[in-house]
Amino acid sequence: MSNKGAEPEEEPTQTDNFVLIGKKPVMNYVTACITFFNSGEKQVIVKARGRAISKAVDSVELLRRAFVKNLEIYSIKIDTEELFKIEGQKSNVSTIEITVAKAKLKQPQEEN
Amino acid sequence: MSNKGAEPEEEPTQTDNFVLIGKKPVMNYVTACITFFNSGEKQVIVKARGRAISKAVDSVELLRRAFVKNLEIYSIKIDTEELFKIEGQKSNVSTIEITVAKAKLKQPQEEN
Repeated sequence: MSNKGAEPEEEPTQTDNFVLIGKKPVMNYVTACITFFNSGEKQVIVKARGRAISKAVDSVELLRRAFVKNLEIYSIKIDTEELFKIEGQKSNVSTIEITVAKAKLKQPQEEN
Repeated sequence: MSNKGAEPEEEPTQTDNFVLIGKKPVMNYVTACITFFNSGEKQVIVKARGRAISKAVDSVELLRRAFVKNLEIYSIKIDTEELFKIEGQKSNVSTIEITVAKAKLKQPQEEN
């Protein structure tokens, strides 16, 4: 996930091309992904927390079905984040991270 | 996904050990998964559609963090289903399918 210092890496795009899903309509996030691809990005990472997870899946599916024909779902990761509220309560929230790429992207791990 | 007829397969558990996420509390689905594992299943498939997708992720994360320490998230697939309503309208709904396994499970595809 995080880049490991100054090592040269072969895969071209591990930059901060994130789309964070919130309360806006799905189409807004689809447009954001398309904009990234049109600006030359090879992959886009769609992130969401809690209730927005469903919308993240909706956005990726709409993008794949209707807009980017050669879209590949490269990886889907789920995790849990701990949130600390002002009152001192701790609560856990699930997260999802969907990496999508245009199909020409080379697989970074070959013999992993 | 579907079994391909009468071919003998080496992987032990491709049976119908599904947990379909609906409107009940998260803990119900976590319990269902634990019950499958306790009855000897090596893997459980958690499925959800639409808004329940967030709850599917919540269920798997709670299961992984609090109940089954050696749980492995084996695969996460997303897709779209077409629903046809009685009035003839068509609507698309996103789906998720999370396969979890106890960590000792052998990887079925070796050279795929």
